[in-house]
Amino acid sequence: MNTYAVILAGGIGSRFWPMSRQDHPKQFLRVFGNETLIQGTFGRLQGLIPSDHVYIVTNDRYVTRTHEQLPAIPSDHILAEPMGKNTAPAIMYAAVKLHALDPEAIMIVLPADHVIRNIRRFHEVLRVAIEAAHEPDALVTIGIKPTHPETGYGYIQFDGHIDEIDVETPRVYHVKAFAEKPNLETAERFIAAGDFLWNSGMFVWRVDSILHAIQKYLPELYRAFEPLMEAVGTDRENELLKQAYEQAPKISIDYGVMERAEKVYVVPGDFGWSDVGDWRAVYELSEKDELGNALKANAVALNTARCLVESTSSERLIALVGVRDLVVVDTDDALLVCHRDAAQDVKKVVDYLHAHQMTRYI
Amino acid sequence: MNTYAVILAGGIGSRFWPMSRQDHPKQFLRVFGNETLIQGTFGRLQGLIPSDHVYIVTNDRYVTRTHEQLPAIPSDHILAEPMGKNTAPAIMYAAVKLHALDPEAIMIVLPADHVIRNIRRFHEVLRVAIEAAHEPDALVTIGIKPTHPETGYGYIQFDGHIDEIDVETPRVYHVKAFAEKPNLETAERFIAAGDFLWNSGMFVWRVDSILHAIQKYLPELYRAFEPLMEAVGTDRENELLKQAYEQAPKISIDYGVMERAEKVYVVPGDFGWSDVGDWRAVYELSEKDELGNALKANAVALNTARCLVESTSSERLIALVGVRDLVVVDTDDALLVCHRDAAQDVKKVVDYLHAHQMTRYI
Repeated sequence: MNTYAVILAGGIGSRFWPMSRQDHPKQFLRVFGNETLIQGTFGRLQGLIPSDHVYIVTNDRYVTRTHEQLPAIPSDHILAEPMGKNTAPAIMYAAVKLHALDPEAIMIVLPADHVIRNIRRFHEVLRVAIEAAHEPDALVTIGIKPTHPETGYGYIQFDGHIDEIDVETPRVYHVKAFAEKPNLETAERFIAAGDFLWNSGMFVWRVDSILHAIQKYLPELYRAFEPLMEAVGTDRENELLKQAYEQAPKISIDYGVMERAEKVYVVPGDFGWSDVGDWRAVYELSEKDELGNALKANAVALNTARCLVESTSSERLIALVGVRDLVVVDTDDALLVCHRDAAQDVKKVVDYLHAHQMTRYI
Repeated sequence: MNTYAVILAGGIGSRFWPMSRQDHPKQFLRVFGNETLIQGTFGRLQGLIPSDHVYIVTNDRYVTRTHEQLPAIPSDHILAEPMGKNTAPAIMYAAVKLHALDPEAIMIVLPADHVIRNIRRFHEVLRVAIEAAHEPDALVTIGIKPTHPETGYGYIQFDGHIDEIDVETPRVYHVKAFAEKPNLETAERFIAAGDFLWNSGMFVWRVDSILHAIQKYLPELYRAFEPLMEAVGTDRENELLKQAYEQAPKISIDYGVMERAEKVYVVPGDFGWSDVGDWRAVYELSEKDELGNALKANAVALNTARCLVESTSSERLIALVGVRDLVVVDTDDALLVCHRDAAQDVKKVVDYLHAHQMTRYI
């Protein structure tokens, strides 16, 4: 049976402002080392999925950049969304395309902008998930063994206990429920209960399984794409794609399908995963000196601890004196100075810039 | 009797890095409003001293900039030091020049880089000091009524009490002692004692009085300048000036003369004075919004309080998120992010740059 990977790369990532911009979102940033996040996501599939079985779903305006960053991917595998409508339509679009190739193909869905440290364990988890996904109508998610009561992630309740997870020998569990991002109290209860995993946003299923599920739980979305489904490969494809997106509801696959479906499984893993949700996560994942500073710039730090400095310039000097727990991000036309604990609020800067028509900085 | 003002403008002001540079020191910065500090110092003399009675002592390399900023001052009133040797040689040089005009002239010495808010009161204090300086060999200092146990200033002990100072009717007191910058404990003792003033670094005396005092207490300095004294106005002046500076000891007038002299007086004043010693002082003197932020830039501040932002660019956007008590100074080639309480340590950045041959940023 054929297995394909679909990388979802339509996001804007405004929490990475000023490094991320409308024309240069998070997945195209070199956050760690020389690879961009999307290059890392693609690279992690080596040895599991051949390059010509990888598809990218991204926004129209990012197609050129995607080509540049991933020259190994065939042009017609970069699926351009005419507008962003969250994950359910993106997955529907990819499923429609793959359905024309092989309705029973296995489809792995991966966000473009996460990091994973232990690729071997990651592959093991995916192999088990792929195996489980052969069952008709099975929807398999990848869960992450949680380490702390994180409020930035959704959770998956499963019919096992996190203490019994053998990270070297992954196995499949039934999913009992999905939970949205909780408050701290709820997150602490989840961790204490022991039967909650972090929702990684990675899924594995047969193409026909997800199409059935969307038909059942998101019929409006299914109907929007039905004309396209019959026109894949014809000269009406682009026109019908645009119509499909115009009619499609804006909804996530978690909320629209996973929370309601019946045969939902999870394979828990522990492979150094992070969704790199904000600058704080970048700090945590970065190499630091003995004072806890990650200075990725031409920087001088005096009496300074636990700071992250990112810069697009190797020339400009950045001096930190007597400061703690800051994120400093320096770009050509904009500078961010943010407390590490306020990293989630960086998107509010982008909101502010929108509200004040300061679009040149967005 | 003629009265002259001598503005000492030789300083580097490395605590204002990255705004101040070797070629652009503090006195030439627009720290408040449209005037530079030296322009403010010159402007404050209007109504008290005619422009053609004002002299500037500055380093050779700042002569052009001084001309540019103070076009009203005659060229030959800008006295260029071939090297910086602290305040005693600078005052000696000016005294030698004025001596050739009028040995009994009154000479007011003013640092170029302070701010004064209440010019009327400032003039009143100077008038009383000028009057007192007529007495042969009298050395008159201007003291500032202290408001808190500041450790960044030197102190003057006088034969009065700060509670008896009538700020509208200045008078002359005898000086009992000078004290260098104290630690906090000592400063608190000074304030509790009530007979200590802040040393403003402003002095008034007859030219022959200060020359006598230098001859007596700094004979090495006096001897270094003796050949020049007899050659003022001749074509040997430049050559002898250079020799004088090479031989002159590097010493402050406070330490070299004032602490040892006998007929030392002080006129206490309270006229909104600050030596603007570092970015913290700039913050304190700046207009602030209701959250205590002074944002002198194209800035966005979210959940941010008590921060100072200075920028040389009106284009670059500076965003602060969730931060407190920071100084952010943004220039073309260097950025400073500093805790307000660490502002004194900014000079250590300059030390670091020297030590690491990063001279392009100095």
